[in-house]
Amino acid sequence: MREFDAIHTVFTPLALNYAGSLGLRDDAALLRLAQGQELVVTTDAISEGIHFLGTEAPEWIAKKLLRSNLSDLAAMGAKPECYFLSIMLPENTSDAWIARFGQGLAEDQALFGIQLAGGDTIATKGLFSASVTAMGTVKMGTSLRRSGAKAGNTIYVSGTLGDSALGLALLQERLGVEVSPVDSLWLKERYFLPHPRVGLGQKLVGVASAAMDISDGLVQDLGHICAASGVGAALHRKWLPLSDAAAHVIDKQDDWWQAVLAGGDDYELLFTVPATAQEQVKAIGEELHLKLTMVGEIVAGEGVSVQDEHGIDVTPERGGYSHAL
Amino acid sequence: MREFDAIHTVFTPLALNYAGSLGLRDDAALLRLAQGQELVVTTDAISEGIHFLGTEAPEWIAKKLLRSNLSDLAAMGAKPECYFLSIMLPENTSDAWIARFGQGLAEDQALFGIQLAGGDTIATKGLFSASVTAMGTVKMGTSLRRSGAKAGNTIYVSGTLGDSALGLALLQERLGVEVSPVDSLWLKERYFLPHPRVGLGQKLVGVASAAMDISDGLVQDLGHICAASGVGAALHRKWLPLSDAAAHVIDKQDDWWQAVLAGGDDYELLFTVPATAQEQVKAIGEELHLKLTMVGEIVAGEGVSVQDEHGIDVTPERGGYSHAL
Repeated sequence: MREFDAIHTVFTPLALNYAGSLGLRDDAALLRLAQGQELVVTTDAISEGIHFLGTEAPEWIAKKLLRSNLSDLAAMGAKPECYFLSIMLPENTSDAWIARFGQGLAEDQALFGIQLAGGDTIATKGLFSASVTAMGTVKMGTSLRRSGAKAGNTIYVSGTLGDSALGLALLQERLGVEVSPVDSLWLKERYFLPHPRVGLGQKLVGVASAAMDISDGLVQDLGHICAASGVGAALHRKWLPLSDAAAHVIDKQDDWWQAVLAGGDDYELLFTVPATAQEQVKAIGEELHLKLTMVGEIVAGEGVSVQDEHGIDVTPERGGYSHAL
Repeated sequence: MREFDAIHTVFTPLALNYAGSLGLRDDAALLRLAQGQELVVTTDAISEGIHFLGTEAPEWIAKKLLRSNLSDLAAMGAKPECYFLSIMLPENTSDAWIARFGQGLAEDQALFGIQLAGGDTIATKGLFSASVTAMGTVKMGTSLRRSGAKAGNTIYVSGTLGDSALGLALLQERLGVEVSPVDSLWLKERYFLPHPRVGLGQKLVGVASAAMDISDGLVQDLGHICAASGVGAALHRKWLPLSDAAAHVIDKQDDWWQAVLAGGDDYELLFTVPATAQEQVKAIGEELHLKLTMVGEIVAGEGVSVQDEHGIDVTPERGGYSHAL
């Protein structure tokens, strides 16, 4: 196995601004918490051919990995702090590829205010894979959880849904409908680059009764909130927020509602609030310039149901997405 | 990609005793620190065919992964707390394999007092690999570091050196000398199962001036302490602690000193103490029933030199081991 010359030159600068990284030169990193804070920790991994195609720009692979972790921190209401990176590099990985992977991390570190604190770079005889463990902080006892939804609460989602699943279908040439160049670019970009709602998550602390990020599809993930909270949920399909691009696809092929209800990789926040908090939610959306859409309500009982504009049940049979290209 | 049925049944019980894991059912884990403590965090990954052969018992692969992380915590003087696990599973991985991997983790959790707090299990189209991010605690400001060694300090190592490298050579049928069945078992076991010196690390807080674990070979790793501390080191080859098995091999083939000086995967602690602390070190060794051996001294200057019993320089040219089977 060859050494990867780029590793030290690429990764050491990423840890420069985090004192606890000890310059990546000791056996471990050190991390202190301000009084009254607790740590939120999440781990997300990706592998070539499963979570990404392998042909993407290395910068985008790096960003998708980091952002899927940031989305989990957002779902808990945490402020990003630092992350640990393990990468498994095939022998033929070029120094240039590693440098571009690092460049992607550097850009997102600046964008999201998170720093590299440690990691491990190993060789693999298989395909590229990588894992990030990301850490954030919340005021003790205030983290958002999946378990607080109550009957009568309103259900919201951020942004628009289904774009990423449609983008993947487009990339795999199985969309089956014509899309304009502009729509095509939008959908693909949403597949390649999630936009973790880190600012929103922090604003929802003390407002939302339950929250999580949508990574396996709206219906399946809402099912997790329902199970954790001991409630059911009723969604109105007509209320679901669609991008222009997604609306155009669905106009042509109604079956693609499936991507909105059960597509993967949305990385939007799904959250519930008491009915009294709707003005607060509106204000947060305006402050962040982020669309926050009421999509249904929490009900007594269990499970998630979806009805269309005629009141007909359109709950998808397959609730969600298991990562497989 | 198939679902792995065993994942939830295997991993969820491993997180039961760690409240902050939230039962592995939320987007992230929560972690609090007692007042005056700081967190020590390390990440170590392994991949099939590089860090292990692939034919090992799954329990041993799991333990080697966890223990390589525990060894880093030990090197910083930390008390183990919790860990996060990412595993990349090839499609043909059986539920039984996963169950045995989990069993290995369960046994080591009990042995070392560490708990699973979160993780991610993904499919891979490549070979098995895995990453652990492990966390421990130290009293704030007291962690062992690589950077405190001073000229005149005495250099110690725990346990015996070279066994793991000799065990690997034996497994790969390139040892070139006959070994007894007892020696063979000892050497192979030491390759498969490192013994992280977690108790020793904690005892060395306030005693050792510098410490690290030996994972890439004694000379190379001592070189890291020297570089971090701005000093040099002189080792006496005759003082290096050998197991009976390693001594038998070296008696037959002098070249195998290379395994002791520059073999990988020892996972022993290497530390320096002021000359005045030798009685303390002796007492710690007796309390832990662990051999702690003086192997040389820190000197002014830079770099590591090794001399044999005749005063002849026998410093290896290739200082250490880069993980490659």
